[in-house]
Amino acid sequence: MSKPLDFQSIMLALEKFWAEKGCLVWQPYYTQVGAGTMNPATYLRVLGPEPWNVAYVEPSVRPDDGRYGENPNRLQQHYQFQVILKPDPGNPQELYLDSLKALGIDPAEHDIRFVEDNWESPALGAWGLGWEVWLDGQEITQFTYFQQAGGIVLDPNAVEITYGLERIAIALQNVRSFREIQWSADRTYGEVNLQAEREHSKYYFEIADVDRLRQMYNLFEAEAEASLEQGLVLPAHDYVLKCSHTFNILDTRGAVGVTERQALFSRMRDLARRVAEAYVAQRQELGFPWGKADSASINSQKKTSVIALDAAKAPEKPETLLLEIGTEELPAADLQFALAQLTERMPAVLNDLRLEHGDIQVTGTPRRLVVRVEKVSPRQPDKTSIIKGPPADRAFDADGKPTPAATGFARGKGLKPEDLKVMEIDGGRYAAAEVHEIGKPAGQVLQSALADLVASIKFDKTMRWNESQIGFSRPLRWFVALIGSQVIPFQYAGLTAGNITRGLRFGTAPEAVVNSADAYADVLKSQGILLDPVKRRAVIAEQVSRLAVSVGGNPEVDATLLDEVNNLVERPTALLGKFDPESLKLPAEVLISVMKKHQRYFPVIKPDGSLLPYFIAVRNGDDQKIETVTDGNEQVIRARFADAAFFINEDIRFKLEDFVPQLSTLVFQFKLGSMLDRTNRIEKLVAGLTGTLGLSPDDQKISRRAAHLCKADLATHMVVEMTSLQGVMGGYYARRSGEEEAVAKAIVEHYLPKNTGDAAPSSKAGLVVSLADRLDLLAGLFAAGLAPTGTKDPYAQRRAALGFVQSLIAWNLDFDTMEGLKLAAANLPIAMSEDSLKACQEFITGRLKGYLTDQGYRYDVVDAVLARQGNNPAGAARACQQLTAWVQRDDWNTILPAFSRCVRITRSLKETFSVQSDTLKEPSEKDLFAQITRMESALQGKVAVDDFLNTFLPAIPAVNAFFDAVLVMSEDLQEKANRLGMLQRIARLPENIVDLSLLEGF
Amino acid sequence: MSKPLDFQSIMLALEKFWAEKGCLVWQPYYTQVGAGTMNPATYLRVLGPEPWNVAYVEPSVRPDDGRYGENPNRLQQHYQFQVILKPDPGNPQELYLDSLKALGIDPAEHDIRFVEDNWESPALGAWGLGWEVWLDGQEITQFTYFQQAGGIVLDPNAVEITYGLERIAIALQNVRSFREIQWSADRTYGEVNLQAEREHSKYYFEIADVDRLRQMYNLFEAEAEASLEQGLVLPAHDYVLKCSHTFNILDTRGAVGVTERQALFSRMRDLARRVAEAYVAQRQELGFPWGKADSASINSQKKTSVIALDAAKAPEKPETLLLEIGTEELPAADLQFALAQLTERMPAVLNDLRLEHGDIQVTGTPRRLVVRVEKVSPRQPDKTSIIKGPPADRAFDADGKPTPAATGFARGKGLKPEDLKVMEIDGGRYAAAEVHEIGKPAGQVLQSALADLVASIKFDKTMRWNESQIGFSRPLRWFVALIGSQVIPFQYAGLTAGNITRGLRFGTAPEAVVNSADAYADVLKSQGILLDPVKRRAVIAEQVSRLAVSVGGNPEVDATLLDEVNNLVERPTALLGKFDPESLKLPAEVLISVMKKHQRYFPVIKPDGSLLPYFIAVRNGDDQKIETVTDGNEQVIRARFADAAFFINEDIRFKLEDFVPQLSTLVFQFKLGSMLDRTNRIEKLVAGLTGTLGLSPDDQKISRRAAHLCKADLATHMVVEMTSLQGVMGGYYARRSGEEEAVAKAIVEHYLPKNTGDAAPSSKAGLVVSLADRLDLLAGLFAAGLAPTGTKDPYAQRRAALGFVQSLIAWNLDFDTMEGLKLAAANLPIAMSEDSLKACQEFITGRLKGYLTDQGYRYDVVDAVLARQGNNPAGAARACQQLTAWVQRDDWNTILPAFSRCVRITRSLKETFSVQSDTLKEPSEKDLFAQITRMESALQGKVAVDDFLNTFLPAIPAVNAFFDAVLVMSEDLQEKANRLGMLQRIARLPENIVDLSLLEGF
Repeated sequence: MSKPLDFQSIMLALEKFWAEKGCLVWQPYYTQVGAGTMNPATYLRVLGPEPWNVAYVEPSVRPDDGRYGENPNRLQQHYQFQVILKPDPGNPQELYLDSLKALGIDPAEHDIRFVEDNWESPALGAWGLGWEVWLDGQEITQFTYFQQAGGIVLDPNAVEITYGLERIAIALQNVRSFREIQWSADRTYGEVNLQAEREHSKYYFEIADVDRLRQMYNLFEAEAEASLEQGLVLPAHDYVLKCSHTFNILDTRGAVGVTERQALFSRMRDLARRVAEAYVAQRQELGFPWGKADSASINSQKKTSVIALDAAKAPEKPETLLLEIGTEELPAADLQFALAQLTERMPAVLNDLRLEHGDIQVTGTPRRLVVRVEKVSPRQPDKTSIIKGPPADRAFDADGKPTPAATGFARGKGLKPEDLKVMEIDGGRYAAAEVHEIGKPAGQVLQSALADLVASIKFDKTMRWNESQIGFSRPLRWFVALIGSQVIPFQYAGLTAGNITRGLRFGTAPEAVVNSADAYADVLKSQGILLDPVKRRAVIAEQVSRLAVSVGGNPEVDATLLDEVNNLVERPTALLGKFDPESLKLPAEVLISVMKKHQRYFPVIKPDGSLLPYFIAVRNGDDQKIETVTDGNEQVIRARFADAAFFINEDIRFKLEDFVPQLSTLVFQFKLGSMLDRTNRIEKLVAGLTGTLGLSPDDQKISRRAAHLCKADLATHMVVEMTSLQGVMGGYYARRSGEEEAVAKAIVEHYLPKNTGDAAPSSKAGLVVSLADRLDLLAGLFAAGLAPTGTKDPYAQRRAALGFVQSLIAWNLDFDTMEGLKLAAANLPIAMSEDSLKACQEFITGRLKGYLTDQGYRYDVVDAVLARQGNNPAGAARACQQLTAWVQRDDWNTILPAFSRCVRITRSLKETFSVQSDTLKEPSEKDLFAQITRMESALQGKVAVDDFLNTFLPAIPAVNAFFDAVLVMSEDLQEKANRLGMLQRIARLPENIVDLSLLEGF
Repeated sequence: MSKPLDFQSIMLALEKFWAEKGCLVWQPYYTQVGAGTMNPATYLRVLGPEPWNVAYVEPSVRPDDGRYGENPNRLQQHYQFQVILKPDPGNPQELYLDSLKALGIDPAEHDIRFVEDNWESPALGAWGLGWEVWLDGQEITQFTYFQQAGGIVLDPNAVEITYGLERIAIALQNVRSFREIQWSADRTYGEVNLQAEREHSKYYFEIADVDRLRQMYNLFEAEAEASLEQGLVLPAHDYVLKCSHTFNILDTRGAVGVTERQALFSRMRDLARRVAEAYVAQRQELGFPWGKADSASINSQKKTSVIALDAAKAPEKPETLLLEIGTEELPAADLQFALAQLTERMPAVLNDLRLEHGDIQVTGTPRRLVVRVEKVSPRQPDKTSIIKGPPADRAFDADGKPTPAATGFARGKGLKPEDLKVMEIDGGRYAAAEVHEIGKPAGQVLQSALADLVASIKFDKTMRWNESQIGFSRPLRWFVALIGSQVIPFQYAGLTAGNITRGLRFGTAPEAVVNSADAYADVLKSQGILLDPVKRRAVIAEQVSRLAVSVGGNPEVDATLLDEVNNLVERPTALLGKFDPESLKLPAEVLISVMKKHQRYFPVIKPDGSLLPYFIAVRNGDDQKIETVTDGNEQVIRARFADAAFFINEDIRFKLEDFVPQLSTLVFQFKLGSMLDRTNRIEKLVAGLTGTLGLSPDDQKISRRAAHLCKADLATHMVVEMTSLQGVMGGYYARRSGEEEAVAKAIVEHYLPKNTGDAAPSSKAGLVVSLADRLDLLAGLFAAGLAPTGTKDPYAQRRAALGFVQSLIAWNLDFDTMEGLKLAAANLPIAMSEDSLKACQEFITGRLKGYLTDQGYRYDVVDAVLARQGNNPAGAARACQQLTAWVQRDDWNTILPAFSRCVRITRSLKETFSVQSDTLKEPSEKDLFAQITRMESALQGKVAVDDFLNTFLPAIPAVNAFFDAVLVMSEDLQEKANRLGMLQRIARLPENIVDLSLLEGF
């Protein structure tokens, strides 16, 4: 093996590669930037219609990534290599992979993956969709279809490829840390840059003077304004960048509070937007001198009219229909979603086209969505249709001769008047035309139907990538559409369907001709691609399980991770990697999180529940050079665990409570303040709730301490790095800080339950903090006008509300939600209106309803209960349980009617009648009244369904006897009032318990 | 011819080239810098003993070079390519030339020259010596041996090569302006950067807010201080760079006055020094981890002992001795100086070695100093010397036996006592030893003598380049030392002399063996090298003259330029270039200055004195591809003239007087303020002088106006660009601004005479302003303690003083210099002491003496005159002329003694005697007294030598008679007093005219 490229040669090789592909080679920017994106060669040049292809190195400065040179690959300055391709050349992924080859990375010998990753820069008003590119598990590149910059939608879009050069060098040179990267023949990266890392880290974290930096920020901003006023785009942009860097230093110094942060961000975003707008205006004024970016291929296809089908290949008998939608790597969830839509729509498409067909199979991988339909008719059947004309008596005169009305109608249908027939239609007699339509060949009708089908696929978030301006989850790159051996050349998104598919990435057949729909399966099979997600999932599960068992692990495979991994590969090959058992000293949750969240690795767990020093990764490809891939993945996990150890070591230099003040720098929400503000509110709320919930003095103390610390870990390095470890780390650090075990536990548990099915907090302190946390969250956001809408729920309020009710139910703890919300509202920095309170309460009840329904309770039972006990989740749950038992009783059809008779007759009354018991005459009246007073007295203070129904049960004979004996609506007003009054009192009995009128059969 | 490299490919090619030579490839810096030197990869890494080889692109930002994109090659941001080689690899010029080849520039097909250029950055406390590299007349690179940075002397030194990439691209692509440079296949430089040039120029010149920038400067400085306090070298350096850039913007805005400029500069220099010191301390603390830079070759030679001569080749008869000192291109003046020293010293060297020899020839070119000595003895003659021992009577006892004293002496000389001889020495008798010394071979004794000879060559400014730490004008690279065919392998500066010379640069023989001293001439001749400066000069003169005549120009060749050009080439080939006759519309002085000063071109002048649109350049090389070279030079002059036209067009947008306020930004000297301050003083002084000098009211008005405007052109673009045009441009712009012709003329003339031989101002107004200018300059600098010392005269005070006296003499204008200085002193912002005044006056008199001596006056005549009339140059000149006529008279030997007798006898008297005329008795006394009163009355108010001597002449007989008749020293005290008193009165007669006692023969 030849010597791997040194660091500088990597840069030179990339410059050379992209120059040869037509990129302009640019230089790093002359003011500190956090990323190559901020260089005007990206930020400005992506705007407007002009084409632009550029490549350059960008030493990127991110003060808060400074680690004093101690971290293997996190640096306050790292080297990016930035490429912009505008417009999309049509094959940017392939170009990118070729560039890796130019560096000496043979994709066939590695596992290279495009892993969903979207990018957003609020300060620049910019975002894009794309992937992280992984090399044997290591993220080496950010690959993005740029959608917006400076608040301006890009048209055309630009492909942005950002290489992380240190990562690539570490992998290529097989070293452990940036320090060891060979930069040139003589010098390592550490030799030339370690001192800079140390000094700048120290400067950014400890020395930079906050007051002076604030002054600088203001001066830079003023100069940006002054430049903008004169239409000076580039000087203004320079100063925006200086603002941004200064802001980053201030932030690293921990000096930016919530209000300031919001204000600064909004000012920067505003400036960035105005710079972008001024740039576009300037280019427009110059008449866009570089022309408009036309992707030649798209353009030529636009001008082409519909491509004719090859009639010679038209099927003559039922044949298989195949549609393959070729894409760049779809996010796992989007793949799932698209397959579901195709499954639903394909039958309708064929039905609409009147094409008979056999089985429909919808399958797919991250790179292709496939629909296969068996035995599709070669053509539509002929169709005869009757078209109603003028009434017979107006169509023909007395002599039976066609009138002008008939002649005109016939001409319109292409018939002669004598062809018209008189028919009985809808009970009238009409002149009618019988039109015979010849069925069209299947290929012909499918041509537009398939394009429409592709167009009908929707995603939560779509992107555009070329001039077609069509949105999809990720770019569409090819279509295969065949019926039998006939190509159905439909056009969509600048592509024309054909019979050329693509093999496994990096496989032996980048492209392959599919001779017929039936041959498709074999073509993919020869590439080792498992098209059927179900089979693929089973294969992965089997491989993972086998490997886990081989080292003494449990055979069970994590289903959620399995689902995700299944949607990330076309040809899965699981591999077993190991890591240093020393790492097992770190909290298991951390290791598992790193493995699963960051790397999609399956941890290997012993029967006793403890971790083994192994992981299982699933590669996309066969087992060629599996050792290389395994080795690469082992390096990644080693670095990841080293990172984790670094973070934890950094964190445990302080006590957990030391992090509390830092929460002031973490914005929760503009109107609702920082996480420190939220912590303070939670503490207050806990203090208010402990009484209500009847906590022991000990538990009260624990709750209050836990409330104080519950969010502190959000400011720790480890949680900043992996948010999913919140709580877990809090507990870990609490124990290390000498907090009581109960406090630590409560910190961990206050996030429970995280998902449906999770356990509720097991300790009372955990429960109280959890409730307070959620009440503050929900009340606050509703008060701020941020209730979730549609599918949008950025603050996960649904999960918060669900957890809230789950916990109360699990603890069977009666709690008045509305009272809780009011208590929370009183602490908020903003006012909460009655409407907001009510909406919030209803939102929680909504989650409760969902939860109860999911528990299997009948909807009407749930409705009946929630109508009266929606405010008290635990009570509602009990009520549902009890009511369910009642409605399942054989005699329910005698119980319910007895009660419903009382309700129905009084339901519409506006007036409340009072009973003059001394005027009661009839024995049935008197008996009923006695029952009523008995029941009223028995139900005093009772809210259980059982209480009510058990109380009511003995009264049923009296109710029935009453109705049998008397006429309620007596003409004697006193009698009537007495009788209605008694029924009203019966109807009111379960007033706070259940609304039985909502039950079926009421 | 293949397509020339585009701009980005030039950068890539240089990176690749230097990487292959072992350089680390670095990146541009992330904060605005004016040059690649400021990147820490240069500024810091050149410090300390560690080796460092690096190459990188540096987009360099110089706000005041902004030209709104209008200038062909002047930009507010240009791209440098920076290379640092530390230590000197021994062949950096050759490596550099190879890099040009890598860009597709074949040195053999161009005229590539190393033109003296030294570099200094006061703000960084840095300087170096080296060259501009010219490609067909265009400066494309700065090549420097870095001597000092941050005030720290570099050890080892570093070679700094700074390519100007735009210039190279313009030449390589044969385009006219930066805008047209092809950057990539698709885009030109103008397309990607023109807008930036426009916007940043506008920002820097018009928009940047002075107050805010001052605040930024202070904040940056404070952060630098804070970083330094913590030992954070790099953060501190970053902020120093930010200070520097901010300062540059302020300066471009014209906002920096003298005091502020001085203060800011001194603060920056101080910070830069402390950063440098902190860096070195840091590296030292780390133990200089990269080791100490050893240039291997030097090291190995250090360890080698003296190399033995090849005895077999030792000459047996008188042979030619040849010494060739091979250097990198010497500055023209240094070459001249070195040749003079060798000419002077070589005879002494041979004499000291007792080597007989024939003719000595000293010749040389910029790359070699050559000494050739004919017929050098093959060895020293034997030598017998007598060594004096103890006195004979102590050496031998009474018996004639040697005493211990004799025995000891003999032993000490390697003799037996009986070998001692008794000899008569210095009048005594001594035991003496006769020692015979065998003469050593010439080669052997020359070995150290030649090394000493080379070491003895001195220069005004020397540099070091390698570990030998030896200083020379430019690096020594090889020695040839031969006597006959024997190599004299002396060692010096890390080199060992041999018999290998180097041919013409880019010629066919980079190296050639010289078989014998006599063969050397042929070796050089075969390369076309003209070794003899006299012959070379004649060849150039003939070529230039012939080309000039061929297009109708004068045959005369500018001698000063010829001398310079002669010292710049080894093989001269003159070429005729033309330029656009349109350019002739520019002032001829501008065109001539550009041609001569910038390009060393000979202008072609018609017999009527006007310019022809041609120039003559002298290339170093033969006439191969002379068209390419001519074309290149024509492009350069075109761009230069375009620059000039640009500057002039910029300037004439304003009136000349508009520039006066801007003079406040030009520092004259810290204590003496700005050029505006100086202008104000000159104006005052002119007002004071016009009376003294008796100007007409008209002339007074003109003088005052001219004084106001005389320095204004220093703030114009054209003069900022070419200082030598000061005055000329002032006059030009004055006329264009509608000033009176007389004012314009006075502005031009106030700089006259610029050199000895130049005419004085022709107008009275010009004269007055000129005198005021010089009086202010001299008085001010002397008052500030800045009198010239030794060879140092940075403010050209010698020239000022000389011009001052020349003008007064030319106008024959009596003027009391001391009075003038007092007037000037009164205006100064600082006090001028009596001592300073006197010193200044003496300094001027010193120049006057030099001037008069140069006029051919006898030194004693000059001394005699200046002793009395040093304050009045015109009077002194007249006196010299008159006195010279007197001393040439045949009867002078009767005139002078008559007077001198009177003086000599009274000279030593402390007392002044008064004559009691009524007590005079002797007729000779009375006669003499009558003469005395006659003379005293006749000389009333006279200061001419002629007046005095013509008055004295008739008194001579009386004087002689007096001395013949009386004894001056009479014993009668009254007599004696009378006689001495009379003689004293005679001696005092020329008191303000001349001191004849200083004449020879007095």
